[in-house]
Amino acid sequence: MTADRLTDARLTDADPDRLDRLDGHRPGPVAGIDIGGTKIAVLIVDADGAVLGRATHVSSVGDQDGAVPAIAAALDEALANARLTRNDLIAVGVGVPGRVDPDRGHVTLAVNLGWTDLALRDGLEAAIGRPVVIENDVRAAAIGLHQRGVAAGARDLAYLAVGTGIAAGVILDGRLHRGARGLAGEIGHAIVDRNGPVCACGQRGCLESLVSGPSIARRANVESPQEVYAAAVAGDPGATDLVDDVGRLLAWAIHTLVMTYDVERVVVGGGVSHAGEPFERPLRRELARLRAASDQAAELLPADIVDVLPAEAEAGAWGAVAVARTAFQGSEVVSHA
Amino acid sequence: MTADRLTDARLTDADPDRLDRLDGHRPGPVAGIDIGGTKIAVLIVDADGAVLGRATHVSSVGDQDGAVPAIAAALDEALANARLTRNDLIAVGVGVPGRVDPDRGHVTLAVNLGWTDLALRDGLEAAIGRPVVIENDVRAAAIGLHQRGVAAGARDLAYLAVGTGIAAGVILDGRLHRGARGLAGEIGHAIVDRNGPVCACGQRGCLESLVSGPSIARRANVESPQEVYAAAVAGDPGATDLVDDVGRLLAWAIHTLVMTYDVERVVVGGGVSHAGEPFERPLRRELARLRAASDQAAELLPADIVDVLPAEAEAGAWGAVAVARTAFQGSEVVSHA
Repeated sequence: MTADRLTDARLTDADPDRLDRLDGHRPGPVAGIDIGGTKIAVLIVDADGAVLGRATHVSSVGDQDGAVPAIAAALDEALANARLTRNDLIAVGVGVPGRVDPDRGHVTLAVNLGWTDLALRDGLEAAIGRPVVIENDVRAAAIGLHQRGVAAGARDLAYLAVGTGIAAGVILDGRLHRGARGLAGEIGHAIVDRNGPVCACGQRGCLESLVSGPSIARRANVESPQEVYAAAVAGDPGATDLVDDVGRLLAWAIHTLVMTYDVERVVVGGGVSHAGEPFERPLRRELARLRAASDQAAELLPADIVDVLPAEAEAGAWGAVAVARTAFQGSEVVSHA
Repeated sequence: MTADRLTDARLTDADPDRLDRLDGHRPGPVAGIDIGGTKIAVLIVDADGAVLGRATHVSSVGDQDGAVPAIAAALDEALANARLTRNDLIAVGVGVPGRVDPDRGHVTLAVNLGWTDLALRDGLEAAIGRPVVIENDVRAAAIGLHQRGVAAGARDLAYLAVGTGIAAGVILDGRLHRGARGLAGEIGHAIVDRNGPVCACGQRGCLESLVSGPSIARRANVESPQEVYAAAVAGDPGATDLVDDVGRLLAWAIHTLVMTYDVERVVVGGGVSHAGEPFERPLRRELARLRAASDQAAELLPADIVDVLPAEAEAGAWGAVAVARTAFQGSEVVSHA
């Protein structure tokens, strides 16, 4: 789906008064909203990319009846910080951790939020009176990184998000790759150990069953992956083995993404990666080992191909900003089947 | 690279008299030549897709000095069978098992043929006096399957070739996906067992090190994978275990291709697959097991997503035909980075 098609679809939508809210393609502030399992992050950004305001609501988004009020409240807080009102916004982009149908504006399924077939776009537009576009959060972040940030301008890039779930957003030849059924990039459910633990998806030994945030915590019998990384830093041998294993498995995922897609950049983000150096070191060690073993791996996986984002990169919220801009400000066409 | 760009590049090439050989985009017979490790297969096809003649030279292609004469001799045999001469051909497409630079017309590296940086296009054009286009054999086959055959019209498909090597040719949104460095689809060097055998590429436990034709033979201490399949059919327990393992690993490869690319069709071909039902049964059993375990796998891997080609499909030679047509008869644009 191209940006033009997206806009066309919206302009020809059944609801005629939505036309009044589109305001054409004009410069001005947009909001990017990143929905997480435990927080809602909002960025208000002007046409030049300057941040006008931000807000982070640390609370559960709640069930799907409570979703729209919770998102609107977080948006209003960021607007107040920016000394703006809803009417100043050209558009709002929202990244959702789950399966999204951007054409219909529905969240088809967001397991970790407990949402099923939620008409989030129309609900938010009715609540806030501004045009809204929604996208899967990882894909939104990939679009954002392609437009801005460490991978700006790369024709082919993968954004590997390692958090509550694991998935990749993939830009090929400058365009978002969705796949035939909108499920491209589901590397979290590639099988890395056929004798591994049973994944929530039903398969055994999915990448996600071993190195998602909850899986890392479960493997160490603690509450969070942050505890595991802290223990590894403190010298705990079991925690060190575990974070080394996470690094090996994520290097495998990067290697597999590069071997299949031949992307020129891989950007790693998501909550687990925010552990920083203790997260990054085992990953880079394993990538170096792969590179040393094979000329082909050395060519496909040069040392500078991988970037690990700091939490401050706000990849999710910037991705939501990029999605809003692409849909409503005529930015580069970034999507294809 | 689009077909137009390919043609433009050729028309603006340094050699002015090549213009005379292009003859514009007109209908007429083309030749497709599939270079293998032990044979050269040639198809002569008219503009309507009817086969006018064919030939198979069962002999080593030889070192790179002998490549052009060997290919020209196979072409001439097929032309004689079709009662045509070289001058009747609009163009010749050649599929090569190795790394190909279609813009320069060079075979950069074909390990199994022993060729390095061979200017095959210009050499063949000088020898036969007709326009030539060369392409990697697996990619050529994917282009051919997209234009014709079991996957005709699929917007997104992967052709998984299991032979002397293992690789995938991938069509996304109707176009060949090459990747940033022209190495997309190298699933044969994805790592399936980090404690597995050392692969020719230097890594340990690549898919190719376990289920390529030579690897299957090596694992059974015999000369060819055909012997292993024959022994499995005859009830040999060790051979049965081995062909079951091959099926499991190739199902893993298909699953991984679908989880990353979300293609709507996967076509399996190549010499190993020509063992037929004893090859296909363990593969389909493992795909059914994956499907039964997971709703997501069931959605992404429906039973009819995978086709295994019979040898008679001649996917390589038809792919070379498709490459010739795409470059010289204005067929659909089928390539992007």
